[in-house]
Amino acid sequence: MNFTTSDKISVQKIEKSRINEVDFDNLTFGKDFSDHMFECDYINGEWVHPTIRPYGPLTISPAAKVFHYGQAVFEGMKAYKDANGKVFLFRPDQNHARINKSAKRMAIPEFPKDIFFEALHKLIDLDRDWVKPGNGNSLYIRPFVMATQEGVSASPSDQYKFMILLSPVNAYYTGDVKVVVAEEYSRSANGGVGAAKAAGNYGAQFYPTNLAREKGFQQVIWTDANEHKYLEEAGTMNVFFRINDTLYTAPTSDRILDGITRKSVIALAKKDNIPVEERPILVSEIVEASKNGTLKEIFGAGTAAVISPVSTFNYKDVTYELPPTAGGYSTKFKKELTDIQYNISEDPFGWRYEV
Amino acid sequence: MNFTTSDKISVQKIEKSRINEVDFDNLTFGKDFSDHMFECDYINGEWVHPTIRPYGPLTISPAAKVFHYGQAVFEGMKAYKDANGKVFLFRPDQNHARINKSAKRMAIPEFPKDIFFEALHKLIDLDRDWVKPGNGNSLYIRPFVMATQEGVSASPSDQYKFMILLSPVNAYYTGDVKVVVAEEYSRSANGGVGAAKAAGNYGAQFYPTNLAREKGFQQVIWTDANEHKYLEEAGTMNVFFRINDTLYTAPTSDRILDGITRKSVIALAKKDNIPVEERPILVSEIVEASKNGTLKEIFGAGTAAVISPVSTFNYKDVTYELPPTAGGYSTKFKKELTDIQYNISEDPFGWRYEV
Ligand SMILES: Cc1ncc(COP(=O)(O)O)c(C=O)c1O
Ligand SMILES: Cc1ncc(COP(=O)(O)O)c(C=O)c1O
Repeated sequence: MNFTTSDKISVQKIEKSRINEVDFDNLTFGKDFSDHMFECDYINGEWVHPTIRPYGPLTISPAAKVFHYGQAVFEGMKAYKDANGKVFLFRPDQNHARINKSAKRMAIPEFPKDIFFEALHKLIDLDRDWVKPGNGNSLYIRPFVMATQEGVSASPSDQYKFMILLSPVNAYYTGDVKVVVAEEYSRSANGGVGAAKAAGNYGAQFYPTNLAREKGFQQVIWTDANEHKYLEEAGTMNVFFRINDTLYTAPTSDRILDGITRKSVIALAKKDNIPVEERPILVSEIVEASKNGTLKEIFGAGTAAVISPVSTFNYKDVTYELPPTAGGYSTKFKKELTDIQYNISEDPFGWRYEV
Repeated sequence: MNFTTSDKISVQKIEKSRINEVDFDNLTFGKDFSDHMFECDYINGEWVHPTIRPYGPLTISPAAKVFHYGQAVFEGMKAYKDANGKVFLFRPDQNHARINKSAKRMAIPEFPKDIFFEALHKLIDLDRDWVKPGNGNSLYIRPFVMATQEGVSASPSDQYKFMILLSPVNAYYTGDVKVVVAEEYSRSANGGVGAAKAAGNYGAQFYPTNLAREKGFQQVIWTDANEHKYLEEAGTMNVFFRINDTLYTAPTSDRILDGITRKSVIALAKKDNIPVEERPILVSEIVEASKNGTLKEIFGAGTAAVISPVSTFNYKDVTYELPPTAGGYSTKFKKELTDIQYNISEDPFGWRYEV
């Protein structure tokens, strides 16, 4: 084994790559992992031992607080390869800022920006061949932090592990998405942790999402927990509504994740002189707009799915059809975003970050 | 799920007990663990390989869903030893029913009752010496289930691990408890997972509880997320209020844990002809009752803390003092409960369960 040391990160390379065992044309999202992973521990008030080592299992106490109290946060990013083999991230500073915002809400210590970026550089550099070119192909990057202190009392951990895993992926969704508007269950509370990428927010959605799936819908659009009157976001996407030519999306709040794709779509719309309104959106408005033919599009926006057009939405057991998406905003924004991500177009906002 | 015979649990005993390394008079809650633990895996739709083995670390993928999506639930129980060395649990059927209720909400498969009980019997039998007699001493029992499938896509795991850990404890709180009534943060949403002992519910409380601690309060009493007008429960306790001679506690809902201590206190109160009302309680009522001298007691009720009298509560930066607790309901219920738990009194409700 090769051990090299940089300024900070110690690197232990794999002996033999697993890359030939992976069928890159038929990937299941988040199932395969690259050769290496990054790991860094928080002990005695300090982040120590930043290490890259072969992807593999952890040895961890069954009393680690993450198992009992869900004290854990994560991020989702992607690396994209252009036609010349250059690799880019998309607005990674935003992911770093957000994991620390999430961490704060979950009483987890912040992770230093310099190690975050150095880890991304070194790790992606080692596993560069795992980033495949071609639209839809990318290397999904999963930074996360979890509470590792051994102890079953409900109080913040004094030890944490920060890690980065890399998983090669193809496009997330195939085809249009059917959604149901939440009427009974909810995703987050005022004053809760909905704005954080806290682990428990996701597990909490599995049961109501299963109920939706049994009825033939892939996703739930969550509404406010209080009255179920306002549309908020989907499980892993923010949601946009187009009525006539105006784009609407819910404002961010302590219940809604401040999505990077969401803010990028808003920026692109403004640049393109498309009117955008960030304001609370009544379910009844959307139903009404669907009935009178002014509702042109609904689409989700998120790192995993990029832009995901909704074909039908269901509310109070009535299904509303959306017009065909060809030529709409969703197609346009998807192209504009991915052209920037894959280094096909100019990058007027400086969103690309080469690694 | 056909586990009916006791031969199904395989047992691997420790070579040398660690019991002499533990100072049983000075325990930190949830820090020390007994010699053995129980483990059972859910694979291909079945709970398999129920095993008791020496307490020790797990080997687990860093991509296990529990780390990323907080898909995990737990229980908290205690074993009590009487003066003759007999060991008892308190209403363990309730914990089994509740872990399955929590599991359902978190899209986790239910755990069979027969293995749950058989595991408790065998495990406690092996580690019987870890249950120390004497009021306040007990062996805290932590059953939990976590998602173990390797994969970073936000969907339910297809593999789980159910475990039971044992941790010797002394009394949980020392002295009276100062609490603050939540005005900004909240614990759970209508239609959320507050009624489940879902891991993420606890981590989500750490930050606001830290803020309360910095101001000198040990606990937060959560209010409804919508208006912060109604008193709900504390972090790991349900809460009772005594105005004149009547006891009030919030009704259970999808936001509030259906506590076993809570329902036991209600049953004891009814037996003792103490009026009890389960109904929404306004913060303003309690403030008013404190001002006019009719608020006699506030106490928390939960397995870890048993009955925990509140000495002061803070609301909108005003601190309200409670009268001294001696001779009150909290003292009475604590004695009645622990007398049943430690086999000192009769057990009119059949709550004791010998192991
Ligand atoms: C709850 C939630 N909303 C929205 C998003 C979209 O955010 P982003 O565009 O930063 O990926 C995600 C995924 O990250 C999410 O988990
Ligand atoms: C949120 C919450 N409320 C109340 C309780 C008290 O429940 P029990 O009396 O069953 O221990 C607990 C602890 O289990 C809890 O976690």
